[in-house]
Amino acid sequence: MNERIRIEELRSRIVSAGEAASWIEDGMTLGLSGFTRAGDAKAVPMSLVERAKTESFKVNIFTGASLGFDLDKMMAEAGIIHKRLPFQADPVMRKEINEGGLFFVDQHLSHTAEAIRNGTLGPIDYAIIEAVAITEDGLIIPATSVGNSSIFIEKAENVIIELNTAQPVELEGLHDIYSPNGQGRRGPIMLTSVDERIGEIGIRIAPAKVKGIVITNAKDSPSTIVPPDTETAKMAEHLITFFREEVKAGRLTNELAPLQSGIGSVANAVMHGLIDSEFENLEVYSEVLQDAVFDLFDHGKIRFASGCSITLSEEKMKDVYSNLAKYRDKLVLRPQEISNHPELIRRLGLLSINTALEVDIYGNVNSTHVSGTKMMNGIGGSGDFARNCRTAIFVTKSTAKNGAVSSIVPFASHVDHTEHDVDIIVTEQGFADLRGLAPRERALVIIENCAHPAYKDQLRSYYEEALTRGGQTPHILEKALSWHTRLAEIGTMREEQPISLS
Amino acid sequence: MNERIRIEELRSRIVSAGEAASWIEDGMTLGLSGFTRAGDAKAVPMSLVERAKTESFKVNIFTGASLGFDLDKMMAEAGIIHKRLPFQADPVMRKEINEGGLFFVDQHLSHTAEAIRNGTLGPIDYAIIEAVAITEDGLIIPATSVGNSSIFIEKAENVIIELNTAQPVELEGLHDIYSPNGQGRRGPIMLTSVDERIGEIGIRIAPAKVKGIVITNAKDSPSTIVPPDTETAKMAEHLITFFREEVKAGRLTNELAPLQSGIGSVANAVMHGLIDSEFENLEVYSEVLQDAVFDLFDHGKIRFASGCSITLSEEKMKDVYSNLAKYRDKLVLRPQEISNHPELIRRLGLLSINTALEVDIYGNVNSTHVSGTKMMNGIGGSGDFARNCRTAIFVTKSTAKNGAVSSIVPFASHVDHTEHDVDIIVTEQGFADLRGLAPRERALVIIENCAHPAYKDQLRSYYEEALTRGGQTPHILEKALSWHTRLAEIGTMREEQPISLS
Repeated sequence: MNERIRIEELRSRIVSAGEAASWIEDGMTLGLSGFTRAGDAKAVPMSLVERAKTESFKVNIFTGASLGFDLDKMMAEAGIIHKRLPFQADPVMRKEINEGGLFFVDQHLSHTAEAIRNGTLGPIDYAIIEAVAITEDGLIIPATSVGNSSIFIEKAENVIIELNTAQPVELEGLHDIYSPNGQGRRGPIMLTSVDERIGEIGIRIAPAKVKGIVITNAKDSPSTIVPPDTETAKMAEHLITFFREEVKAGRLTNELAPLQSGIGSVANAVMHGLIDSEFENLEVYSEVLQDAVFDLFDHGKIRFASGCSITLSEEKMKDVYSNLAKYRDKLVLRPQEISNHPELIRRLGLLSINTALEVDIYGNVNSTHVSGTKMMNGIGGSGDFARNCRTAIFVTKSTAKNGAVSSIVPFASHVDHTEHDVDIIVTEQGFADLRGLAPRERALVIIENCAHPAYKDQLRSYYEEALTRGGQTPHILEKALSWHTRLAEIGTMREEQPISLS
Repeated sequence: MNERIRIEELRSRIVSAGEAASWIEDGMTLGLSGFTRAGDAKAVPMSLVERAKTESFKVNIFTGASLGFDLDKMMAEAGIIHKRLPFQADPVMRKEINEGGLFFVDQHLSHTAEAIRNGTLGPIDYAIIEAVAITEDGLIIPATSVGNSSIFIEKAENVIIELNTAQPVELEGLHDIYSPNGQGRRGPIMLTSVDERIGEIGIRIAPAKVKGIVITNAKDSPSTIVPPDTETAKMAEHLITFFREEVKAGRLTNELAPLQSGIGSVANAVMHGLIDSEFENLEVYSEVLQDAVFDLFDHGKIRFASGCSITLSEEKMKDVYSNLAKYRDKLVLRPQEISNHPELIRRLGLLSINTALEVDIYGNVNSTHVSGTKMMNGIGGSGDFARNCRTAIFVTKSTAKNGAVSSIVPFASHVDHTEHDVDIIVTEQGFADLRGLAPRERALVIIENCAHPAYKDQLRSYYEEALTRGGQTPHILEKALSWHTRLAEIGTMREEQPISLS
């Protein structure tokens, strides 16, 4: 333990998870480490859930992004959350949110740290942060994610460290922790390439602020991504075709530009497709580094990857963490405020690949709300990237629910990314390049290139009728949301039901 | 003329507007100076319109923002525009756009320069730029706006200068021209306060690129803003109350933070309201500097103002341009890429005030499309600011069309700013502080604080019915757009028509 906790006085603050959890009071706000199931504080939240069996209380839970270990599920079931932000991805919590059982604030992932720094989210009572070590000079070394841990530690009244001995100590040196001053009192962020370091290898803390250290020993939950399938393989092909056209037009080279790719199976599969491409010496500047990034490393395709968390499948986790030396000098983990910072995204000129839930014929994207009302996971970092990058690419299969849902709709039932921020749409049908196009031009390429053949006529007919009404963005308002209401009524967006053969 | 054109060889390139216009060919793309009626190229576009009387051709017109001098009107009437971007504000052009007579690409104002630099908007054949002088060392000194003039000159095949002798030569020294390198090959923009200078006083040009110089002598069109009224005065009061609460909470001082305020009468009137407040030593970091900014200067309220254009009423124009010395060391004009740059907006921590057309009960803002289809002016810079600033404030009167239209609606008919980017909504009824609130919390404060009393019950009843369906963002999809369809059918969004007394 002396190796992991290198400040003697801190070793006396080791407590049980139960004791640490007992310090939390009703109404408090907790800042938990954790980003897309990686590096989450595990033991104290679990003990809090335990406490809820005999005691009634509510807390606000702020994190980096989604938690693993079923923590969001268990906290939702225990009913201990008043407010949750800025992201979650758990089916049980989602249900609770949609039933109004807890408040979910869906934020751009780069915005949370600014809001905490500006004091608009209220004080953080406890930061509860997973670490692999505490150095002699007072640096907390995070585990597999940084997320919002540095701002939580900076601003929290008290800090509880979960020292996780199951997380490899070799993670030390991988992180680059940089925290800007308040807005109006800060200089430029002096990062000009993905592999630069501008901060320290850990989160600086005054030892007095460490109220307790809890020793844990559990691996991160593995990611839940599913392997690439025929459709995602086609989407990857279309994306590669687009990249080739950019190279041909002289706008990119074979090294492309730093890539960002959102969380989830589709984005992972699309990235995976680059393995068999001619592109090389690639760079990644993203939030979460998923399996595909390490596959690309192993195929010699990536030169360097910067992220704010590493989220891997069970198999990949074994492979990566037992060979960390192989990747260490090609990787850096940063706070999500930095991985998602508009200043850096714009400067580096990222190619951003994020997942859409639905896209309307003019290119407005819904990333979050099923039929405009039910939250899935949250916008995550997609807005940080899409607004400020070089090329904002959104990927989605053209249909969902066995064809009952068209991902291309007349009118988005909820908008997370406006037409101004959507450059390229990729489905398994093809891709639409919307750059420099007016809405009436966009509708044609989206319908023709991206929609599923089963929905093309229906989309064309909506658009043609809309044209008779005129406008920059023609719509038949009384029918605009009819695809969604039809789905609710008869279970499909299709206008003519095929005769059932069963 | 030697004083205005200080490179001898260039004096021989003086041509008539008609001759310069004759160089333009069908299908070309023109980059015109001009931002919110200020500093627009006037003579050559006018001659182009003239040419269209006897000849059929179409060109793409790129500008900074809207043009004065009825140029957009005349070009639209002449039918010479194929594509127009990134902003316009002319009723005739608007009609033409909405009828599909020309393509309008509605862009974030900081994005156009990047798109031109990246080559995604195709080549610029001619830059036509108004200037007050050309210096001995090859700097084009812009007039009352910078807009996109620097990127147009940098990237255009040919440059035509409109040397306007009616624009005061004292404008020289006011501009600060800085152009980043391409994305991925640039450093930080080293601006850390509103009054810093990081560039040159003019736009550098190789004299060989100047194909012709046209001498003009016409003032800018005056702005069309209307004076503050009772309602805008109330909105200003509410905004000031909000600022006071921020000071009380320790989040701002009496010097506030750099202010940005959108184009138009409402934003101007709200800024005007600061004259009688206790706030002082203010800074402005905005796109357009309107009358209110100079009123605030005259009342000793503003320390420094940075913009990318100066757009004034007729009276104010006389006053300012005959006393330019008084303001000169407190003013700077920058390219719109810099005035609206996410890097700087985030770093400086702006308070951004922009106008909404409609806002839904969850805080999604429509800035552009009347009833979701008909374009008004364009998103302008509001997205650049709202996404990246410290506090995104949207202002709108709670009703329009003599009460027939509620600006607060159940469901925005078009979304330009998503709920993630909208912090404060101000109407003459009050203000809603949405920071840190979940959608169900937002709906309550928006309805109670911002809606007009004539619409409150109707909004409450929609929201209560929506709650029975559940969701993170409850809606009754089949009724979501019914306010807009009712307006189209019976001329009002009101459910119960009062008995007519006439």
